[in-house]
Amino acid sequence: MPRTAETASFKFNHTMIRIKDPKLSLPFYTDVLGMDLFSEQNMGDFTLYFLGYDHDGISQLPTKEKQMARFNREGILELTHNHGTESDPNFQGYANGNSDPGRGFGHIAITVDNIQEACARLEKLNVPFKKRLSDGKMKNIAFILDPDGYWIEIVPSALEL
Amino acid sequence: MPRTAETASFKFNHTMIRIKDPKLSLPFYTDVLGMDLFSEQNMGDFTLYFLGYDHDGISQLPTKEKQMARFNREGILELTHNHGTESDPNFQGYANGNSDPGRGFGHIAITVDNIQEACARLEKLNVPFKKRLSDGKMKNIAFILDPDGYWIEIVPSALEL
Repeated sequence: MPRTAETASFKFNHTMIRIKDPKLSLPFYTDVLGMDLFSEQNMGDFTLYFLGYDHDGISQLPTKEKQMARFNREGILELTHNHGTESDPNFQGYANGNSDPGRGFGHIAITVDNIQEACARLEKLNVPFKKRLSDGKMKNIAFILDPDGYWIEIVPSALEL
Repeated sequence: MPRTAETASFKFNHTMIRIKDPKLSLPFYTDVLGMDLFSEQNMGDFTLYFLGYDHDGISQLPTKEKQMARFNREGILELTHNHGTESDPNFQGYANGNSDPGRGFGHIAITVDNIQEACARLEKLNVPFKKRLSDGKMKNIAFILDPDGYWIEIVPSALEL
């Protein structure tokens, strides 16, 4: 039940983070994490990439319907690439939000049915870990790093806190 | 269709941002934006709040089932409150990710069926706007600011880019 009639149509559609190099980030989010690229919009100085898990067959839609569908569901990740950062020797990289200055944003999280298998696969793919299952107090969650250093939590879908 | 069998269970479950004061942020995300609070976890020095749009009746579930359900869907917002920031005169506030130093994270986005009505309601509730519909080139999207200054895009669910 939505809280109010006025907000009944609202959806938490997407989260946007900036990326340095789509040649690194797109393979990471698609091949490693299993998302699909629903849309790629060249806006002139920058390009927007919209990705998400294809639970509902969006990937099979014709291009225009696929582009439209991305605003009509939740769980979309928007990657913004400002052209040139990938080859600019003076580009310092983006802040991941977890240290000063720049603390604020924390992470995105992927839930998985079998976290042991998921983490073993990520190890095999040489994905850098911020926290392995065996590190720290919470033995049932892990954190990996994306190509820009953003933290991605890997959580079992049946986690009890 | 999921891309691979190994990632078939994966969901983009949540996005975490830090907040200074839950007394400001919780009313904003629930009363103003219409999310429900699915779970509140006191972790000692900090508290985690998990919110989302209740499209599937999660709010009606008993407490434990509601807590479990939040890891089994997409579109969850996790707010982290480090205790004390709300009353610490030396606390500088969190970076919203959109200026240096600290640029990286950009925004979260809410899609709505009727953006004119949604923005008129937000104006009436005195929510600060970063970009009104009438500002700039894109007349069909707006940006508001949450209590910590994070940008929230308001997008029509039928937007064509």
